[in-house]
Amino acid sequence: MGLVEIFALARVPSILLLGAVYGAYVLTGGVVFWKLEGNLGREDISAILSLYVFIFQVLQDASKAGLSIKGNQTSDGFWKFTSSAVFAATVVTTIGYGNISPKTTVGQIFCVFFALFGIPLNIVVLNRVGKYMLTIERNICDFLQGKTTHPRCSRFLVHLVSYLCGVVLFFVVPMVVFKGHEGWSYSQAIYYCFITLSTIGFGDYVADSNPEQAYPEWYSFIMASWIFFGLAWLALVINHTIDILERLHGFLNGWWRRRSEP
Amino acid sequence: MGLVEIFALARVPSILLLGAVYGAYVLTGGVVFWKLEGNLGREDISAILSLYVFIFQVLQDASKAGLSIKGNQTSDGFWKFTSSAVFAATVVTTIGYGNISPKTTVGQIFCVFFALFGIPLNIVVLNRVGKYMLTIERNICDFLQGKTTHPRCSRFLVHLVSYLCGVVLFFVVPMVVFKGHEGWSYSQAIYYCFITLSTIGFGDYVADSNPEQAYPEWYSFIMASWIFFGLAWLALVINHTIDILERLHGFLNGWWRRRSEP
Ligand SMILES: [K+]
Ligand SMILES: [K+]
Repeated sequence: MGLVEIFALARVPSILLLGAVYGAYVLTGGVVFWKLEGNLGREDISAILSLYVFIFQVLQDASKAGLSIKGNQTSDGFWKFTSSAVFAATVVTTIGYGNISPKTTVGQIFCVFFALFGIPLNIVVLNRVGKYMLTIERNICDFLQGKTTHPRCSRFLVHLVSYLCGVVLFFVVPMVVFKGHEGWSYSQAIYYCFITLSTIGFGDYVADSNPEQAYPEWYSFIMASWIFFGLAWLALVINHTIDILERLHGFLNGWWRRRSEP
Repeated sequence: MGLVEIFALARVPSILLLGAVYGAYVLTGGVVFWKLEGNLGREDISAILSLYVFIFQVLQDASKAGLSIKGNQTSDGFWKFTSSAVFAATVVTTIGYGNISPKTTVGQIFCVFFALFGIPLNIVVLNRVGKYMLTIERNICDFLQGKTTHPRCSRFLVHLVSYLCGVVLFFVVPMVVFKGHEGWSYSQAIYYCFITLSTIGFGDYVADSNPEQAYPEWYSFIMASWIFFGLAWLALVINHTIDILERLHGFLNGWWRRRSEP
């Protein structure tokens, strides 16, 4: 079994296509929210158009385009667009911090229709990514089972390691990063991580939104990736928990019936 | 086919048992949040104990207990408890308005663990209620198909009527109620309904939380029922939409493969 099979590379194009549809949907939503809620001028539209051109360049040739996006787009218009896009992302993921929310009637009505199609699309994309992560884990399991003399032990070990990797990657690392860049305590940072990834999103703590903090260039991109993959991972974990609870309920149900029957 | 079969009454006890576990979990969470975040005195604890006694009375004999809860519990303590319980409900449903959120470190840590088990429990309960609603709809379908000479037509009609009933019950009626009792416009009320039932929960509009409004006695109870059954119904609708999107994706995927193969 080679790397192509272990990482199921044949599935990557269809996932990337779905991801492109998802990204375009969120970015388009961001533009519309900005247009409806903010003051979108002509020069801003040209900035957005150049962003779309950039995205198509990335799709055509990922290696050529490089990382030139941040350099020439640091105008005020681009940053207003990013906050609108982040808002659109909090709508489709149903996090909904509420630190920004549509105030105009048209914006509110658009928000309803945007969410109506965006939330199912988001669930489909996250499910697909989550299943892909599960496939990689299973393939690593199968690969190691062929090499070892303790198949059960290695399977348990892979599950444990992948679970711990998830916790470290989606909770411990962000906790340390947020503590450093947001000025929160460790407990506040872990609280923020959990409230965000569980999609509760109180909005009492929101990363990347403190106007008094100077955030590094890569911050919002890393944050978006963290939310996206973290949601896919946590959806898997929650599905496992539901599975356990449903089995428990079935067991209790059977016990209840056996007891009530004479 | 009688009423017992159409409404699948055999399933009701297990659903009620699950609902009781769910209710006890949310109410216990409400007590702990109140203890951690508010100033919970001795007289408040006795009020909560009498509430629990009342709940057990309801479970033992639903018809005897009657509606005596509101009369003798209008002390300040009871109302603080309801707002803590509503907060606990917004956590497990992942709505998370954020108009109230834990400020103390212990409260935040408890919130994380409360949500960790509460969210899966909430999903299980809503799935069970949603499936029960679907079963009733299917049984009505089957019942009418036996009586009519146009089986396909009647099946489509039942689907349409049940969908329209859901829209009226969970969007149109609440919209009118909120317009009357919260002083919102129709568009704000429908925006609030959707943002709540989709679990986005920005918290820019929150019903039953304006201190300047005098709400009727039944208001918070009706609101809780609306959120609970509305979430179950909307979960069904969103699942149908996901089903359509997954089929569309499978179709596009097949088309893409057929095109890329020579
Ligand atoms: K929220
Ligand atoms: K939310």
